[in-house]
Amino acid sequence: MEAMSALPDLDNLETYRADKSRLGRALEALPGDFPRPEGAFPAPYGVIGFGEGWWAAELLKGRFPDTLAPGTTFVLAGGYGLGRLTGLLSAAREVSRRVVVLGFGPEAEVPVPSSPLAPYRYLRYVLEATGEAELGAAVDRALSVEKERLLPYQKSPENPAKLLAWGLLERVPLWVAAPRYPFLAQALQQVFARIGKSLSIAPPPGALEFFITALEARHEQGDPLVGVVLGEDEETALAREVLATRVDHLEELDPPEAQGPIPEALAYWYRLAWTAYYLALLYRKDPGDHEVLARLREAAE
Amino acid sequence: MEAMSALPDLDNLETYRADKSRLGRALEALPGDFPRPEGAFPAPYGVIGFGEGWWAAELLKGRFPDTLAPGTTFVLAGGYGLGRLTGLLSAAREVSRRVVVLGFGPEAEVPVPSSPLAPYRYLRYVLEATGEAELGAAVDRALSVEKERLLPYQKSPENPAKLLAWGLLERVPLWVAAPRYPFLAQALQQVFARIGKSLSIAPPPGALEFFITALEARHEQGDPLVGVVLGEDEETALAREVLATRVDHLEELDPPEAQGPIPEALAYWYRLAWTAYYLALLYRKDPGDHEVLARLREAAE
Repeated sequence: MEAMSALPDLDNLETYRADKSRLGRALEALPGDFPRPEGAFPAPYGVIGFGEGWWAAELLKGRFPDTLAPGTTFVLAGGYGLGRLTGLLSAAREVSRRVVVLGFGPEAEVPVPSSPLAPYRYLRYVLEATGEAELGAAVDRALSVEKERLLPYQKSPENPAKLLAWGLLERVPLWVAAPRYPFLAQALQQVFARIGKSLSIAPPPGALEFFITALEARHEQGDPLVGVVLGEDEETALAREVLATRVDHLEELDPPEAQGPIPEALAYWYRLAWTAYYLALLYRKDPGDHEVLARLREAAE
Repeated sequence: MEAMSALPDLDNLETYRADKSRLGRALEALPGDFPRPEGAFPAPYGVIGFGEGWWAAELLKGRFPDTLAPGTTFVLAGGYGLGRLTGLLSAAREVSRRVVVLGFGPEAEVPVPSSPLAPYRYLRYVLEATGEAELGAAVDRALSVEKERLLPYQKSPENPAKLLAWGLLERVPLWVAAPRYPFLAQALQQVFARIGKSLSIAPPPGALEFFITALEARHEQGDPLVGVVLGEDEETALAREVLATRVDHLEELDPPEAQGPIPEALAYWYRLAWTAYYLALLYRKDPGDHEVLARLREAAE
């Protein structure tokens, strides 16, 4: 491990040269940055998601439990072809009056370019198109409040994302999310990889048993683990207790200024996206991933 | 790391003394060891699972997409109370002619004791109760074929589970499962923790992007990772290619002698349960987890 003094200074503009893809700008512009739906979409609604669209589809399942619906089916196609989309689209076209394909690739009617920030854009489009604009506005407010304290000009001691990036440096995060936030741990595992270029661990369902048993054989070895706790309920309280003696360090995140599982989950996700951004800069890596993923895109088309 | 010679010999009976909970016997007896349903259950069927019942519920979703159904709802309640079950049960009782609760705890009408092997038992009961006995028999055949080559008297060079345990020793597995096997990676992460007492990593959806980016910042550091590949398709082939230069070692598992996603997935899971069993013995840990989890059970009741 390098000495602290050799690491980049997050409060120095020079450090931001490593952000070659200008992901910082995209993060800053994110609240409100999504394609606006045009016209009306017949209800009832169904949502199905692939690749970058998977989390938005999971979040929307509480509202639209069907994948294919007789009214409008939204297909969030943020992944690689690999043959799976074709069959689904013809099935959707048989069942639904209207099929809207968002994403990248030739089938996408509403373009959503590949990006680690795409989950927000898929979610917001569908909320707007399905009469859930109020919930969408609550998401945007939650992100805007977060943004003010996470921007690069907010210096380290007052910037929760910069502070958290230091806490996660050279450690492997273990995400501990309240059951109120479905699949938030996996969404964080993804954004932490794609922006922070780093490995993290999402527990399987039955997380408490996992936390107790998984670290028993060799919890003194290997990378230091850091438990990152998101949300407060009986289950996260038990998880905190279990992990206290088993991981190197626990990080407890302030609850976001938001109400309802979706705005709260998005606020946490946005805060961790900024954290991953600062972490990439500490590792002197480009926080963007377009170049890294370009070859995959070619191989999978 | 201890020298190889200091590690237990998996071909020596003495080594099996560490199996204080006799999990080896439970593993051997598993094919066919499940509670038999009695009487008829009105269709249509719905399934919902918690805790140890989650994976069986996910596997059954392809057949019974509803959680609560007007005929019979099977509630796989293999988790801790924490208040969630009560609300669900009254909702199910309003919607369904019959509600069958399996699991542990006071509400369970069909007892399924807590065990890392419980997922098989939940699955088999529901298959039997819903007219899917043929599929159930295919699962049992697949497990029985696996068993013959995985038992302790099968010596190391011919025993795939013992060999794999050596391959995973002192490494962190990264599960790479074909999309044909929904949630197999998470199920393996769980069984590997509960029996092998070891940490492993299940990738989020969008696994290819994760594999490419997550190891970029520091793949030379920390615990050596081993990619464990389950199944063959275009996506696992790409994942293999991506991981080849990024992990310490790749393990490719022989396809099981089974047909269809559910029998195949269960065969892989059973093989890895045996592997985790041998790994626990190599670490001189009891492969059972009853004692480890007893305190959690008390805290969460």
